Amino acid sequence: MAGVSEATVSRVFSEQDAVKEHTKQKVLAAAKSLNYYPNVMAKNFAKRKSGNIGVILPYLPKVKLFSVYYFSEILNGIGEAIEKEGYDMLLLFQRVGQPYDYKKYFLSHKIDAAIILGAKDSPEERDSLRELRDADFPFCLVNQHFDGEQFCEIDAEHVAGSYAAVTHLIEQGCQNIAFLNGPLAYSNSLDRLKGYQKALQDHGLSGQEQAVFYGQYSLTSGYKVADDLLSGQLYDGIAVANDRMAIGLMQRMKELGIKPGADIAVVGYDDSDASAMCDPALSSVHVPFFEMGKRSVQRLVNQLAAPHMKLFQEKLETRLLIRESSQRNQVK
Amino acid sequence: MAGVSEATVSRVFSEQDAVKEHTKQKVLAAAKSLNYYPNVMAKNFAKRKSGNIGVILPYLPKVKLFSVYYFSEILNGIGEAIEKEGYDMLLLFQRVGQPYDYKKYFLSHKIDAAIILGAKDSPEERDSLRELRDADFPFCLVNQHFDGEQFCEIDAEHVAGSYAAVTHLIEQGCQNIAFLNGPLAYSNSLDRLKGYQKALQDHGLSGQEQAVFYGQYSLTSGYKVADDLLSGQLYDGIAVANDRMAIGLMQRMKELGIKPGADIAVVGYDDSDASAMCDPALSSVHVPFFEMGKRSVQRLVNQLAAPHMKLFQEKLETRLLIRESSQRNQVK
Repeated sequence: MAGVSEATVSRVFSEQDAVKEHTKQKVLAAAKSLNYYPNVMAKNFAKRKSGNIGVILPYLPKVKLFSVYYFSEILNGIGEAIEKEGYDMLLLFQRVGQPYDYKKYFLSHKIDAAIILGAKDSPEERDSLRELRDADFPFCLVNQHFDGEQFCEIDAEHVAGSYAAVTHLIEQGCQNIAFLNGPLAYSNSLDRLKGYQKALQDHGLSGQEQAVFYGQYSLTSGYKVADDLLSGQLYDGIAVANDRMAIGLMQRMKELGIKPGADIAVVGYDDSDASAMCDPALSSVHVPFFEMGKRSVQRLVNQLAAPHMKLFQEKLETRLLIRESSQRNQVK
Repeated sequence: MAGVSEATVSRVFSEQDAVKEHTKQKVLAAAKSLNYYPNVMAKNFAKRKSGNIGVILPYLPKVKLFSVYYFSEILNGIGEAIEKEGYDMLLLFQRVGQPYDYKKYFLSHKIDAAIILGAKDSPEERDSLRELRDADFPFCLVNQHFDGEQFCEIDAEHVAGSYAAVTHLIEQGCQNIAFLNGPLAYSNSLDRLKGYQKALQDHGLSGQEQAVFYGQYSLTSGYKVADDLLSGQLYDGIAVANDRMAIGLMQRMKELGIKPGADIAVVGYDDSDASAMCDPALSSVHVPFFEMGKRSVQRLVNQLAAPHMKLFQEKLETRLLIRESSQRNQVK
């Protein structure tokens, strides 16, 4: 009716600056004549009906989600903030591979807002999230971002984190550095890959960026990929995209008589509880998962209280922690 | 009206055998004349209204609950069963020290059934739980039991678990065994104390049962109590009521130049992830927390589907796992 795209209408109602005043007036006039008041219609629908904030988690049979450091830390942060804000926390398990229907939780008044963890980047996922956004249902992605989309996101500086890990290996004298990554469907895997590649390039080690191996972020997958990674080409440093895979990899290295640290420097990622406890203690990149969980709740609660939905996209800092596994000259 | 106690009425409607036929008929007649039909009144109210099973957790600021092995494992089991049964999981944080009002979650139709974790034995808690039971709201306590009450409970054989740990220390040649326990307000602490005392008595070491120390089930509390525990009386074996306290205790022992295992045998409890990873690896009592969580959901879902509420009280088996920390002759 206003002769503009859906995206423009959405931008007008989310009050972003990128819309010309003339276009904005056309859209608002059309909305008025159609009796469309997003603030009344969708907002009041969503606002504080259930007292629950939904946390959507991927569900994989046999995976003990609450025992995965990454999830448990984000949930700790979410739990603390939700309790403080007087909401309850509805955990919704999303069976991996099943069609996404986030809207149903809002439409059935089970939740007022949603935090989505472990989202994969796929056309179906993007469609589901766009639908949610266009319906003005407040939601936030944690530790994930979708390039080119206007979704609310709390993420971490994973490119910088991975860059720091690889730069540290180079500074330890490593010349031939492999990267063990998780599935690229997660934006944080892609970010880590970018950090690895950039660090090599910046230090004149480009041409090596092909030494990339893939696991599933599990200990077992790190253990299994080890034989492949350690045969043939000899690496003197390995950056790993999470601690669990790094610990599995180090287990296999030790079985093969290769000393992590002394023979091959290893850096993990996440700074999980296990990283300080394993042998040798694992250098790792700290990610403020607890803070990210907390922040996502605070921002959503603000969203629910505000007269208008506002886009937020934040990236929290990561930080390299050096332990024994990457110190080539100091481990016996 | 029937001239019997409230407890008897409750027993009649929960169809237990302990009520005489004559008394039962009196109660049922009185109920009929009062138009009281528990199955219609309370059951339909509670049955499958929200699609949520509530999980009530104690909330303590700064305690990262999802990172505590005991909670995360129970939640893993609950999550798996809830997902399978098609329910959603509402986490409700109960601020420690605040008045209990479990009923409100049922009355506001937020949950159809409740699983209560970390309940302490206090008169207020017993009152709240009795009220819930008398209103026919289905709930289940996990890893906790209340002697003398008719509550649904899924617990573990903690007396036997603790007995096995202490007996193992005696078999390792320990003659002077201390016990580091958690707060006695938890039935599982009391059970562990009974197991410790019984093992000493059965092996002719009675008279020593006073060597009991207390922590808060945290790593820090195990670390802090160490100085007290290690000064004065010389113990050659220490049974600890959970792994976190045992790990804190061993940290302090090592700082003081005492070798856990070689100098003093230590056994933990829970068989948490950390027990296999710490140094020396910690002997511990395995508790089937995952299975307990799963079971509580299954039994509650059966409860919701059944025409009558039935009391269930189960205790799952515990199992001692021997690692380095308790093998006095094998650690250098």
